[in-house]
Amino acid sequence: MSLTILAPAGSILALLFALYLARRVLKADQGTDLMKKISGAVQQGANAYLKRQYMGVLIFFVVMFVVLLILAMSGFLTMFVPFAFVTGGFFSGLSGFIGMKIATAANSRTANSARHSLNSGLRVAFSAGAVMGFVVVGLGLFDISFWYYFLKFWYSNPAHLVLAAGQALEDAQVQAITSAMLTFGMGASSMALFARVGGGIFTKAADVGADLVGKVEVGIPEDDPRNPAVIADNVGDNVGDVAGMGADLYESYVGSIISTGALAVAAGLGFHGVTIPMEMAAIGILASIIGSFFVSTKEGASQKNLLSALRRGVWISAGLIAIVAFPLIYFGLGSQYIGLYFAILSGLCAGILIGVVTEYYTSDSYKPTRKLAGSSLTGPATIIISGLSLGMLSTVLPVLIVGVSVLVSYYVSGGGADFNMGLYGIGLSAVGMLSTLGITLATDAYGPVADNAGGIAEMAHLGEEVRERTDALDSLGNTTAATGKGFAIGSAALTALALIASYIAEIKVLAPDFVFDLSITNPTVLVGLFVGGALPFLFAALTMESVGKVAQSIVVEVRRQFKEITGLMDGKVDPDYAKCVDICTRSAQHEMILPALLAVAAPIIVGLVLGVNGVAGMLAGATVTGFILAVMMANSGGAWDNAKKYIEGGAHGGKGSEAHKAAVVGDTVGDPFKDTSGPSINILIKLLSMVSIVFASLVVAFSIF
Amino acid sequence: MSLTILAPAGSILALLFALYLARRVLKADQGTDLMKKISGAVQQGANAYLKRQYMGVLIFFVVMFVVLLILAMSGFLTMFVPFAFVTGGFFSGLSGFIGMKIATAANSRTANSARHSLNSGLRVAFSAGAVMGFVVVGLGLFDISFWYYFLKFWYSNPAHLVLAAGQALEDAQVQAITSAMLTFGMGASSMALFARVGGGIFTKAADVGADLVGKVEVGIPEDDPRNPAVIADNVGDNVGDVAGMGADLYESYVGSIISTGALAVAAGLGFHGVTIPMEMAAIGILASIIGSFFVSTKEGASQKNLLSALRRGVWISAGLIAIVAFPLIYFGLGSQYIGLYFAILSGLCAGILIGVVTEYYTSDSYKPTRKLAGSSLTGPATIIISGLSLGMLSTVLPVLIVGVSVLVSYYVSGGGADFNMGLYGIGLSAVGMLSTLGITLATDAYGPVADNAGGIAEMAHLGEEVRERTDALDSLGNTTAATGKGFAIGSAALTALALIASYIAEIKVLAPDFVFDLSITNPTVLVGLFVGGALPFLFAALTMESVGKVAQSIVVEVRRQFKEITGLMDGKVDPDYAKCVDICTRSAQHEMILPALLAVAAPIIVGLVLGVNGVAGMLAGATVTGFILAVMMANSGGAWDNAKKYIEGGAHGGKGSEAHKAAVVGDTVGDPFKDTSGPSINILIKLLSMVSIVFASLVVAFSIF
Repeated sequence: MSLTILAPAGSILALLFALYLARRVLKADQGTDLMKKISGAVQQGANAYLKRQYMGVLIFFVVMFVVLLILAMSGFLTMFVPFAFVTGGFFSGLSGFIGMKIATAANSRTANSARHSLNSGLRVAFSAGAVMGFVVVGLGLFDISFWYYFLKFWYSNPAHLVLAAGQALEDAQVQAITSAMLTFGMGASSMALFARVGGGIFTKAADVGADLVGKVEVGIPEDDPRNPAVIADNVGDNVGDVAGMGADLYESYVGSIISTGALAVAAGLGFHGVTIPMEMAAIGILASIIGSFFVSTKEGASQKNLLSALRRGVWISAGLIAIVAFPLIYFGLGSQYIGLYFAILSGLCAGILIGVVTEYYTSDSYKPTRKLAGSSLTGPATIIISGLSLGMLSTVLPVLIVGVSVLVSYYVSGGGADFNMGLYGIGLSAVGMLSTLGITLATDAYGPVADNAGGIAEMAHLGEEVRERTDALDSLGNTTAATGKGFAIGSAALTALALIASYIAEIKVLAPDFVFDLSITNPTVLVGLFVGGALPFLFAALTMESVGKVAQSIVVEVRRQFKEITGLMDGKVDPDYAKCVDICTRSAQHEMILPALLAVAAPIIVGLVLGVNGVAGMLAGATVTGFILAVMMANSGGAWDNAKKYIEGGAHGGKGSEAHKAAVVGDTVGDPFKDTSGPSINILIKLLSMVSIVFASLVVAFSIF
Repeated sequence: MSLTILAPAGSILALLFALYLARRVLKADQGTDLMKKISGAVQQGANAYLKRQYMGVLIFFVVMFVVLLILAMSGFLTMFVPFAFVTGGFFSGLSGFIGMKIATAANSRTANSARHSLNSGLRVAFSAGAVMGFVVVGLGLFDISFWYYFLKFWYSNPAHLVLAAGQALEDAQVQAITSAMLTFGMGASSMALFARVGGGIFTKAADVGADLVGKVEVGIPEDDPRNPAVIADNVGDNVGDVAGMGADLYESYVGSIISTGALAVAAGLGFHGVTIPMEMAAIGILASIIGSFFVSTKEGASQKNLLSALRRGVWISAGLIAIVAFPLIYFGLGSQYIGLYFAILSGLCAGILIGVVTEYYTSDSYKPTRKLAGSSLTGPATIIISGLSLGMLSTVLPVLIVGVSVLVSYYVSGGGADFNMGLYGIGLSAVGMLSTLGITLATDAYGPVADNAGGIAEMAHLGEEVRERTDALDSLGNTTAATGKGFAIGSAALTALALIASYIAEIKVLAPDFVFDLSITNPTVLVGLFVGGALPFLFAALTMESVGKVAQSIVVEVRRQFKEITGLMDGKVDPDYAKCVDICTRSAQHEMILPALLAVAAPIIVGLVLGVNGVAGMLAGATVTGFILAVMMANSGGAWDNAKKYIEGGAHGGKGSEAHKAAVVGDTVGDPFKDTSGPSINILIKLLSMVSIVFASLVVAFSIF
């Protein structure tokens, strides 16, 4: 029996495990009536948002479906493409939806469990995060397996294939299968972009808006129930940091697997080459499940203990993968391919190293963030300058890590002798990096749950001790979120490189006579590099502007409520929470359209004007600057956040000091950096490649150059 | 007689014209004794700084000279290289020195002339700026002409040449000449980097430090003589914005001419191809001289009138160049090469368009900056977010302009049929863009003179009316500085591209058997792209950090003087100005070392590790992200500065309002953006190429890949 069966088996296992965890979370008690009420309001808001977002996205998918259908009927694409596109979007959205559902159900339960002990709080929050993690990998691998088996069956009939002169049947089959599968990557990426951008705008606009009036103008604490934007802020954590991140990593996950598969043909690995990444993913799921059992802590644990509790889970999983991947390659492909094992290993290590670097630059246990906190003493301007330069500086090591990983995985895979094998190795390193996703995502998605739990503890007046526990959980969430982001960005860079290679492979099939000139001295490539390089900047500008704009309307609304609702400040009357949620919902919908259209339109326009070489240049340019800009924005934002927390912990005068005020400015600037623009860029660089691949035939037919 | 004589003739003409203008400036009256005293203090500080800087740089040049000499004696380089390197650095430094001398002499004279009328103030300030402009182009073209004639004479003896198999004598001569000439580009670039970085750190540290204590803490106005850092601030304008900029644009100017010349061999244009850019430069000088006579205004002129007075000069020069370049190409090279004329034209237009875009994004006459000013109403965080996104957004059009210019100049020059001819066309477009440098630099360098004049007017209590006139001149200087920066960046991008092509051409000569793989799918190229892409970020981070660090020490010193010197606040005792100048001088020296070493070491290290292809990738990556980052930083900074000025003009509550305080934060963040990091990046991307070219033989001999 083929090892390929591992993939569907792994996906079912992941989903069952998620189900088991979900039931365990739901079994926990929700706490007092007030807690239920607050949690209910957050749930309702998140549901309302996602419903609206999915309606908006539905229109996009219907239009794209029709466009793809027309192209398919005109012979530019195969008939599976429109359907694969839709399933990719559907499962990506479903991952986000389930993650959001469980996170909003877990917030009050986490708060309530934290009334008993820190460990039980951690268990609930982590389990909720793990549900999301395993749903993402489970659904991802399910979608991949489904299409793989279905297409394999379909193309097993040679009549369904057009063979190029001298092409072997198997090659043609693999080619047709992987090419169709890339399309659902585009569906997943589109969905992810909407979710990340829309959710990111929602969450940061609510956060910034709530803080600007509540903390700064009126002087009430964070998460105070009198603040009309407080529910919107909590909703935002769920729709942005949970649903958005879920869709995002779903996309990374399937993207890395299918882009690597697509490189198998040229590498001459046939069906084996396509299934190896799928099997790796299955192994990763099993390892993540095992690892997740090692996450627990004792009462009275310090933040360091908590962190090592989470890390233990990730490291055990990574270790298991490193062991099991060896026989997979050695026996699955043969000893002559053992270099590919080292490619996987290099990706796995790179992911961990990027996480370490991210932590170094953003955690207040280390020098950079502490120094940043010190620069708040001379005011907001100096903390902004230092934070920006910290972010810029922090890009160097990740660039070197990715660079070394690219070279190592290329050459150990035999790229020196066989170029295509080297590219396949680069793809596999991305798969290796993402193979621990089940558990890394769990540690990441756990953060917003803990954050929400803290909010509920505050609003439901659960007392100092509980709030301290949820704060400990939340603060840890900041660190895991930062390392999670580093991981998402690193894998995005490697996946994007694999996708560029897939794009070129696709063109070679579509237009065998096309003469490539991908040299950086070719002016169309050069101009493509410039245009691609500017896209992440444009994208970041648009999304930051949007956050600013929506935050402004929240400020206006919150000010209005404080003025017009009598008894609100005394706590006698509830504010109109729903109104703020509604403003964020509507505005985020509206604001996500332009960035999304940009991502879809840019490759097509560049393709029609600059041709295939120009598109390749654009993809490379966008990957390079996108990677660097995303790292910078994530790390600046994380460091500002933690510098503020460090000051709140008593340094430089503590809460209320001038230094603290300056640090709040830094944190506010960092919000859209780290939770809206930065993470969206990861998706952007892959979506650009996906769109280029899907519309390649159009570009080949109609481009000017 | 050959047209080549135009080049030395043009250079002599420029220097004579500069001399004439300088005498006119020096003839003007210096004003009151107090004015003389203040101006003297600024002169003294600037002299002290430059002396120290040149001493520091001398060490670098001596070391590099020895290294190059050793390499030359080992046969890796020709014997001219070390000497050419030194002359490039010498003339670049000399340009900055003369510019600084005249600017510090002109400040009190401008203030005094402004006592009579706006027009006479403008005349003095503009003349001083023009001295610098014409010294830069004059010395640049002189150095080029000298080496051209000298090398041509030397290599006219065939015994001095080693001909490759089948190579024509003329080709070998041109090859040898242009290859040696590229070296003095490296000298000029190194000098420029030191001047820009050192001067930039000095000027912004003094500015930020003076403002943080003076304006923010103590609440005294800008340029108040009681502020101990006020002289340092004025010195900074001269060593950063004048001497730094002079060295910078000297480097751009000669860089574009010699890199284009170096592309002549491969394009098959021989000596003609080398001399055309030199002749273009000579034409530009003549046109600039004529244009400069059209700069004058009437009393009571609005800022708009003033701006059009300056613009008239630039546009007339550009128009003249556009006309005269036609016969130059048509008769000089022949009608079949007329496409090259359009390449020149496309560069000329691109330069003007980038200036227009820069003005749109940074002038408070237009929507972006006005909207930015409005975002100050919700505090410092929102103006920072909006300013960053404004800067990011503003990169799109310049990228498209440069992109179109690259494609147009490549294809009109015949790049479609002959690749090398197309590259030569791209080089010529950079020369076209920079041909108006004499006058554009005059409008640019005039700014700091006017700024200083305003400071002197304030310190010497010259009265409201005079200060208003100098303010009008200064405010205009902000706009011309912004467009000047756009121009510097645009030309840097085109020149860097020409230099990349020169690098590859150089390798082809050094190692005729080397098999290039410059494809963006080659992993060494890819990794090079990533590393190169990160370099401008690293560079910006280091320089911003330096400004912050030095500003901190100024803050401490100014606070100390306010505390310890009794009678200072009452204006009875002078502060210790020299101490602040000294701190800035020493610290700037110290801080400029690391960034400069980075720029020199990076291409060598990357070359040894990644080889020739990797270096090419690095250069392309650095050019792309460097260009985008430099545009972003310059425009964010310019817009913040003008948003603050717009509020000071009465909008959103005017001076002293909360909005104004927020805008000051934006302006302070923008200072290192626009005057230190941003402009240094222009030099960085060219210096990387120059170093790569000079050390190419080393890389070819010893690289791993």
